[in-house]
Amino acid sequence: MADILHRVGIKSSSDEVYKALTAREGLAAWWTNNTQGEGKVGGLLKFRFSAGGTEIGGFDMKVLELQPAKRVVWQVVDGPDEWVGTKINWDLKQEGEYSIVLFKHQDWKEPVEFMYHCSTKWAIFLMSLKSLVETGKGAPSPDDVKISNWH
Amino acid sequence: MADILHRVGIKSSSDEVYKALTAREGLAAWWTNNTQGEGKVGGLLKFRFSAGGTEIGGFDMKVLELQPAKRVVWQVVDGPDEWVGTKINWDLKQEGEYSIVLFKHQDWKEPVEFMYHCSTKWAIFLMSLKSLVETGKGAPSPDDVKISNWH
Repeated sequence: MADILHRVGIKSSSDEVYKALTAREGLAAWWTNNTQGEGKVGGLLKFRFSAGGTEIGGFDMKVLELQPAKRVVWQVVDGPDEWVGTKINWDLKQEGEYSIVLFKHQDWKEPVEFMYHCSTKWAIFLMSLKSLVETGKGAPSPDDVKISNWH
Repeated sequence: MADILHRVGIKSSSDEVYKALTAREGLAAWWTNNTQGEGKVGGLLKFRFSAGGTEIGGFDMKVLELQPAKRVVWQVVDGPDEWVGTKINWDLKQEGEYSIVLFKHQDWKEPVEFMYHCSTKWAIFLMSLKSLVETGKGAPSPDDVKISNWH
């Protein structure tokens, strides 16, 4: 098993970051503008991505755990084979003026090339989350920062 | 043991990317402007970082392996405890107009919070490398993109 880890600090309260990780409008403003579903425990969040106006796939996440301003856990229930069954943990803590986000996308079966790609892409989207909360403007798909031929 | 993985695609030849990973001037233009030493096999590269004009630490890397336009391997021989003994692998391959960089910072003893930070920061520096090779301008330290209270 292998994990993707990231840490960013967002000049904000953890309450604000938590909102951006749980409200549909928040998620749509930093990850992908095509976000549907319910951010409540047991709810299903559907993230879809497009390229050139065509939908190219996405992820369905079941919300496993929510602790306001502290923790969000998702399980991937549909999407690329490599993602299904993996979990995504968001742990938040306040350090002075920063809300620290500890991100873990855990339990990849193998460190395949797609995992390398997703690791970098998660960093890009975490910076989009940071930008959204700090400035009001993120860079969600389809206007996300492109990193390679895999977008 | 735990690894940091990343993948970026740089619109360029792998020869150009290889240069930016081996020539002192290249390294200084995307990672840290305070880069000293020799990028040859067996040579020692010294990367130093500063904040507010004061040097705050860095890494010494021994060059273990070089395959032009294909592979660069470093071993960390001095720096933060968590880094010493780890290895950094750069694998390059050409896919059409992109040079694909597969990056692995391997053999972290524990997935400590500093590893989370370094994972995100490596993504930022890989984007700086991409920018340098594609546009001639990177964002090396001390002008690197800041991600948190840990810079």
